[in-house]
Amino acid sequence: MSHFADVHARARFAAEKMTKNNLFTTDRLFCDVYCFEPGQSQSAHAHAGSDKVYYVLEGSGRIQVDAEERVVGPGTAVLAPAGAPHAVTAGNERLRVLVIMAPKPS
Amino acid sequence: MSHFADVHARARFAAEKMTKNNLFTTDRLFCDVYCFEPGQSQSAHAHAGSDKVYYVLEGSGRIQVDAEERVVGPGTAVLAPAGAPHAVTAGNERLRVLVIMAPKPS
Repeated sequence: MSHFADVHARARFAAEKMTKNNLFTTDRLFCDVYCFEPGQSQSAHAHAGSDKVYYVLEGSGRIQVDAEERVVGPGTAVLAPAGAPHAVTAGNERLRVLVIMAPKPS
Repeated sequence: MSHFADVHARARFAAEKMTKNNLFTTDRLFCDVYCFEPGQSQSAHAHAGSDKVYYVLEGSGRIQVDAEERVVGPGTAVLAPAGAPHAVTAGNERLRVLVIMAPKPS
């Protein structure tokens, strides 16, 4: 496996639902690109023992972590700490988000 | 601490050396923005028990992981697995890189 990935080239969208496109997986973390068509979402959920970082690459949407919900766009980073419910919803345009989670859930 | 960070607003450059600007720190990971003036670099080094992901936000430069070295620009993600020597050198323009490392070195 190469240590380098072109994030834009690895992003795939699907009409049915948001997609998760893996770039890297190790024993300690994974790195994905999540792709949302307008209006697609990832429902609120939590991970007991893993922290997640989102970085918005393109588009706009809303991200919620615990009781905090914000409109986000390119350049926003978001931390969803272990145990905190978090959700993502795309706005009126395609949303691409880099996602790193550590440790990788077993 | 807010769960949200404006990555561009948190980037600071310094004439003396590259800078590390922390966005988030947990027991499991940290998330920084590294800022390099043209020609500044982070020398080759390795972390015994932690994996690092770079995501190039802006600018251009060279990143080396093990024996693999590439010219990188916005949209490139790079994995430096535990134990692998890695280095970053900015090119002719300012380089900003999002960095996530897990677990956080103790």
